[in-house]
Amino acid sequence: MEMLKAILGEKLKAFLEEDVGLGDVTTNLIVPPEVKIRAQMMVKESAVIAGLSEMKVLFNDVVGVRFRCLVNDGDEVSPNTVIAEVEGDGRAILMTERTALNLLSRMCGIATATRILVKKIEDAGLNVHVAATRKTAPGLRYFDKKAVIIGGGDPHRFRLDDQILIKDNHVAIIGGVGEALRRVHSSASFSKKIEVEVKTLNEAIEAAKSGADVIMLDNMGVDEIGEIINALRRLNLREKVLIEVSGRINEENILEYARLGPDIISVGEITHSVKSVDVSLEVIEVVK
Amino acid sequence: MEMLKAILGEKLKAFLEEDVGLGDVTTNLIVPPEVKIRAQMMVKESAVIAGLSEMKVLFNDVVGVRFRCLVNDGDEVSPNTVIAEVEGDGRAILMTERTALNLLSRMCGIATATRILVKKIEDAGLNVHVAATRKTAPGLRYFDKKAVIIGGGDPHRFRLDDQILIKDNHVAIIGGVGEALRRVHSSASFSKKIEVEVKTLNEAIEAAKSGADVIMLDNMGVDEIGEIINALRRLNLREKVLIEVSGRINEENILEYARLGPDIISVGEITHSVKSVDVSLEVIEVVK
Amino acid sequence: MEMLKAILGEKLKAFLEEDVGLGDVTTNLIVPPEVKIRAQMMVKESAVIAGLSEMKVLFNDVVGVRFRCLVNDGDEVSPNTVIAEVEGDGRAILMTERTALNLLSRMCGIATATRILVKKIEDAGLNVHVAATRKTAPGLRYFDKKAVIIGGGDPHRFRLDDQILIKDNHVAIIGGVGEALRRVHSSASFSKKIEVEVKTLNEAIEAAKSGADVIMLDNMGVDEIGEIINALRRLNLREKVLIEVSGRINEENILEYARLGPDIISVGEITHSVKSVDVSLEVIEVVK
Amino acid sequence: MEMLKAILGEKLKAFLEEDVGLGDVTTNLIVPPEVKIRAQMMVKESAVIAGLSEMKVLFNDVVGVRFRCLVNDGDEVSPNTVIAEVEGDGRAILMTERTALNLLSRMCGIATATRILVKKIEDAGLNVHVAATRKTAPGLRYFDKKAVIIGGGDPHRFRLDDQILIKDNHVAIIGGVGEALRRVHSSASFSKKIEVEVKTLNEAIEAAKSGADVIMLDNMGVDEIGEIINALRRLNLREKVLIEVSGRINEENILEYARLGPDIISVGEITHSVKSVDVSLEVIEVVK
Amino acid sequence: MEMLKAILGEKLKAFLEEDVGLGDVTTNLIVPPEVKIRAQMMVKESAVIAGLSEMKVLFNDVVGVRFRCLVNDGDEVSPNTVIAEVEGDGRAILMTERTALNLLSRMCGIATATRILVKKIEDAGLNVHVAATRKTAPGLRYFDKKAVIIGGGDPHRFRLDDQILIKDNHVAIIGGVGEALRRVHSSASFSKKIEVEVKTLNEAIEAAKSGADVIMLDNMGVDEIGEIINALRRLNLREKVLIEVSGRINEENILEYARLGPDIISVGEITHSVKSVDVSLEVIEVVK
Amino acid sequence: MEMLKAILGEKLKAFLEEDVGLGDVTTNLIVPPEVKIRAQMMVKESAVIAGLSEMKVLFNDVVGVRFRCLVNDGDEVSPNTVIAEVEGDGRAILMTERTALNLLSRMCGIATATRILVKKIEDAGLNVHVAATRKTAPGLRYFDKKAVIIGGGDPHRFRLDDQILIKDNHVAIIGGVGEALRRVHSSASFSKKIEVEVKTLNEAIEAAKSGADVIMLDNMGVDEIGEIINALRRLNLREKVLIEVSGRINEENILEYARLGPDIISVGEITHSVKSVDVSLEVIEVVK
Repeated sequence: MEMLKAILGEKLKAFLEEDVGLGDVTTNLIVPPEVKIRAQMMVKESAVIAGLSEMKVLFNDVVGVRFRCLVNDGDEVSPNTVIAEVEGDGRAILMTERTALNLLSRMCGIATATRILVKKIEDAGLNVHVAATRKTAPGLRYFDKKAVIIGGGDPHRFRLDDQILIKDNHVAIIGGVGEALRRVHSSASFSKKIEVEVKTLNEAIEAAKSGADVIMLDNMGVDEIGEIINALRRLNLREKVLIEVSGRINEENILEYARLGPDIISVGEITHSVKSVDVSLEVIEVVK
Repeated sequence: MEMLKAILGEKLKAFLEEDVGLGDVTTNLIVPPEVKIRAQMMVKESAVIAGLSEMKVLFNDVVGVRFRCLVNDGDEVSPNTVIAEVEGDGRAILMTERTALNLLSRMCGIATATRILVKKIEDAGLNVHVAATRKTAPGLRYFDKKAVIIGGGDPHRFRLDDQILIKDNHVAIIGGVGEALRRVHSSASFSKKIEVEVKTLNEAIEAAKSGADVIMLDNMGVDEIGEIINALRRLNLREKVLIEVSGRINEENILEYARLGPDIISVGEITHSVKSVDVSLEVIEVVK
Repeated sequence: MEMLKAILGEKLKAFLEEDVGLGDVTTNLIVPPEVKIRAQMMVKESAVIAGLSEMKVLFNDVVGVRFRCLVNDGDEVSPNTVIAEVEGDGRAILMTERTALNLLSRMCGIATATRILVKKIEDAGLNVHVAATRKTAPGLRYFDKKAVIIGGGDPHRFRLDDQILIKDNHVAIIGGVGEALRRVHSSASFSKKIEVEVKTLNEAIEAAKSGADVIMLDNMGVDEIGEIINALRRLNLREKVLIEVSGRINEENILEYARLGPDIISVGEITHSVKSVDVSLEVIEVVK
Repeated sequence: MEMLKAILGEKLKAFLEEDVGLGDVTTNLIVPPEVKIRAQMMVKESAVIAGLSEMKVLFNDVVGVRFRCLVNDGDEVSPNTVIAEVEGDGRAILMTERTALNLLSRMCGIATATRILVKKIEDAGLNVHVAATRKTAPGLRYFDKKAVIIGGGDPHRFRLDDQILIKDNHVAIIGGVGEALRRVHSSASFSKKIEVEVKTLNEAIEAAKSGADVIMLDNMGVDEIGEIINALRRLNLREKVLIEVSGRINEENILEYARLGPDIISVGEITHSVKSVDVSLEVIEVVK
Repeated sequence: MEMLKAILGEKLKAFLEEDVGLGDVTTNLIVPPEVKIRAQMMVKESAVIAGLSEMKVLFNDVVGVRFRCLVNDGDEVSPNTVIAEVEGDGRAILMTERTALNLLSRMCGIATATRILVKKIEDAGLNVHVAATRKTAPGLRYFDKKAVIIGGGDPHRFRLDDQILIKDNHVAIIGGVGEALRRVHSSASFSKKIEVEVKTLNEAIEAAKSGADVIMLDNMGVDEIGEIINALRRLNLREKVLIEVSGRINEENILEYARLGPDIISVGEITHSVKSVDVSLEVIEVVK
Repeated sequence: MEMLKAILGEKLKAFLEEDVGLGDVTTNLIVPPEVKIRAQMMVKESAVIAGLSEMKVLFNDVVGVRFRCLVNDGDEVSPNTVIAEVEGDGRAILMTERTALNLLSRMCGIATATRILVKKIEDAGLNVHVAATRKTAPGLRYFDKKAVIIGGGDPHRFRLDDQILIKDNHVAIIGGVGEALRRVHSSASFSKKIEVEVKTLNEAIEAAKSGADVIMLDNMGVDEIGEIINALRRLNLREKVLIEVSGRINEENILEYARLGPDIISVGEITHSVKSVDVSLEVIEVVK
């Protein structure tokens, strides 16, 4: 996922403005305007790197200094790896430091958490996709979803308008999965996939027969999910739908779910409870 | 910290727009426009609540439905507590659900993590402030800092323009803490506090003597910090400055630092590595 | 498709501001501030109405006067039908008049053109969807797509991020439909439908076999399209994919294409070459 | 009319963002980031070209690829003319394609329709200006008006603040053309022209005598307009005012009106019912 | 000039946000959220009031407290006049105080300065309009121009697009007033007035004969202006054009210029060098 | 204070757009697009220059022409000094002229007025800081504060969130300076200075003893202030606080206040009643 620089730049400018306010009063008092510096971005812990292409746009295009990547987005690095260098106007680099690191360390955190889950499944020889949810930080949907992709995950839908997903609250209002599916099938755009959250085997069967593209099994126990998947197989309905499993799945229990053979396991935690990766920016040279 | 509703509303509208896009295609197909619903927000785990006043502005002022709090920001709740009810246009409530929960669960997460640290210190009978840093999610500075305050913490500076904080990179460029302090003292606005990160006892002494308001001891070991604080006491300089301790401090080790007698312990983790609190919104009644 | 009022209001405010500038110099000189008026919106020609819910938000929520619909979005009206009344502050209504009519008459124009095509197909007893394209006026995507839906059409994808659609330029760059499909299938999100533009029967077969959800036959003659559809039927591939036909299809020739039995016919003209419906706003009473 | 690039660029960025959303999911999956392409913009039908200077800003300044015009804005081209080439980053060009063409084809459509009317009048040896109205698509005022100018038309007023135009609704509220003119003459800025819509010869005479700059004859029959113009001539008032004729005038009937000798004929249709010109962008070379 | 509240409110919100930042840290610490207050706006010196309708929108519509005017925009008040009362949420009123007063005191300052000039001319029995220029504070064009109107002045053109004004730099580039006028007359929109700055009597004559609507005599001495006006009278050209005189005209010397009989005297000082009127907001009651 | 160019550029673009509207209709008619010009900015009166770094960003980065400073921000110049040259696209320079001069002449005016006060105090051999207030023009806080700094003044707080300042209205609501200070001391962030406006000696003593950082003596007579400062000295409290004096202090009376020995004298007038410095931009060469 590579955004047009001009659009990405607007978002990054807004982030900068939030942190800078009327100016970096410390830097402006201490660092003379003509000072040029060279600095390094170092990752302090094992991590999957994500956010470097955002850093390029931030430093090169928005701030106007030189940013050079030493690794690529998606690379796994060991602790204390220098991942990039930035060189240019000293004041500008210091004013940008915190905004840059806040974004980068969050994106690395998401990519790293995603990769751990993806690898677990791969290492177990299973073929299940790890997907994100819409549980992203407000205003950061693009960055959170992109980091998931870099980590090897599926971004899932981007917002309320790009896929049809019938959830418990829809069913609660309209009275039944069947009625919800009927309304959707009669009027939905052909361009959207239709997913429906089901609570029982009967609902799962109804969904699969009606032509839903994806069935979501949310907040169910491992046994319950297993039974539904097996029943769908017996009824020759398994191949007609994708099955997404969701709800409090994490590093500890993901393999239990993955072994049941769903197509997708979606995990809110990778974006709603991000553990930032520790990255620092250190001045290594004052360039006269 | 209570923001003017009109200003807060603008930010919340932008968050909504990010999640809604051109519209909630599912809800629009399933829920007729005249349906009114009543729904509850339930917190699934122990938590300190933060974000309710934002929810009021979001639901009442921006979206135009009725939102009623059952607890207050700052309250500690046990698992499965209903904290609020929302009632009104069904489509509007469902379109707002995810944006609302994403913000609320993050703010609760920050307030809860902050409170845990604050309590630990209080329970040990110590008098040290827990402070946030500028390590907040881009675009969410206001919300992250507010949640820290609700949790009982000190928000620390809001951005680069509201306090002078001389950090390692400033010193690296200018060649010494002394020179940095000199430049700052000669030109800084009287309205700003001056804080300086020091690496040695000598720098600490220099800072205290020069009239710095706050000394930051960043990424130092417990012993080193203890020695500096004790030396400042012996030299009758301790009372002249506030001392802030920072750097990889967390729930496990915070008391070790607190017992050394600093004024402030700042913790990046409470905002850069937020564990969201699990909150759900469930429709409990379709109101004809 | 019903947008949250608060979000829609922002767009409408921007439209108003474009037309008002620093103020309605004429109205401010002539109409005293205390004058209240009642005015009617009249449609001068046969039309399908679209845009009334936007007018409600514009007049009621943004401008703060009373707007009352006399018909509904989607209704077909005969010439000289009064479709709504607006009552309140005279200056405000006159300042809003042109912006309101410009949006409404465009949306009615799109809905009317769409309905004509949809009816043609229905009247011929065929079951083919009429879809829009992304050929909408810049900045008006939401309004143009919504008007298509009101007219009975399928909005098709909203933008570049909500469906995968491999077009001729993609194929030109990568060297073949097959290679393009391979790349997409290996990495696309499960949440997106995959559509591919094909130029030959072989490409169509390849697409259908590879698991594409939709095949687009763009700018082909009626005969060519017929042959491809028939061939897919013979090969039992017809049911595996949706077929979209596109390219200079209009009121005159749409039935020729519809009779070939595609699933969707997409028509750029309904949004890129809109014939506005003639709507006026006339003051009918000065309310003291 | 040549806008500052920086201001124009902001508008174009907003258009791009509307179409791109979180990213071009298709292009990002298929086209590797290092691919450079060369593409051509071809006009498929006879047209007056308008929008090339916007394309330059869009491609060169906003998107950062090379755009080279082969014709100029205002040129008349025959079908299948290559009007421009664009070369650079493949992903960026494909992400921009639709936004670019949507704007360009609309502007060409407006310029072409305007030119047809202008030529008709010129070919008849008449000296009457063809003018636009404020019936432009919301958000596109600048582009629509500019295309009219390129087509040879007069843009008329830009918005409600740059000319005084007393219309039927003003008169309806205040009770008479005379009273409206009195209010305007007593307080209007000297910097604005004053135009007034009149319904009768007497009103026309009153307007001309009072010092109005322009009289508008709106939605009147050819005979009625002829009588008024002749009467004004007889009374030696013709030279004191400009006369604008308006109301359902189109290619078919414009000469009838033009022959009556007004100064301006304004035509809503050229902007409110735009027939887009068919323009395509085709990749012609993959540049390694 | 009365702007739509919704548009005005957006500008006022941006002003508020500039002053409030992340919140009024003082007020939030001291004033409990439930406190309601009543406060008065008092003007400390003689002034013409302007900005009350902006205050209404700010307090009533944006901030949501009750604002009641005791005088009207345009009224002249003596020192220590209470001009308005505001009542409601205490925090909200204090957060708004400075933004409100900054705008109001500037607008009053402009209106007062304008009125003084206007009165001077009226008291001398002369009939010359006092006009503003485009020398307004960046971002405040609307407010500055409106205050001029309230003071009794003519706002002159709003920006570069609403009148044609050929100035010295245009002439310097193109080589002569005559050539500039020729280009303008051949292509300008009929909807715009044409004004031209002239340096000599010959240029003035050329301008008047060519059909310019307004002649500007900028930075000339009183004698020179007198000669040109008299010469135009002798040549029967005086009635064909409006004459605007400009350049370092102020309270002291305005009558000298006015007695020469121009139509307009424009004065940059009333907006570029505003002396704010002293207005305070004082809490007079804490309403439980 | 040096803002990131990218952030500053956004503000300047908005200023430009306000003045340009849909385009510079005069320049576009007269100046051909290929014309390049060279122009000079000349200051007509004695002044302290401020705003040149904003001009650099405006002309170089936003507008894309060459801007070269001949003096520096902060320099004092004599009348008729050429301070900068600009060279490039003729249309672009003329479209930018007024916006540029409006900002520059205001900033020079503020810097000049500030410098006069600062020099007065220096020349009297006193050591008191001249500070600004929040009485800046709405939307221009950054520019007004920066001009104060260039003039040699202290910017004081930037907005409501960067310092705690207890004012008369806070005290009026809460009932006393003591109670206000208590609330603030118990909960304020360590990162903010605490200032309190006092009305009596007793309040001053209370404030100094409680640990306030700054005491403000607002709108008091010279004698009263003298007594309070002397009393604080006698009580050995003078060194514990900074003393700010404020309220209708100007060039005439500032030394009377300065001789009393406060730390800061704040003056609203330097930003709320700006006398713009006369600066012009003149085309000196048409570069083919």
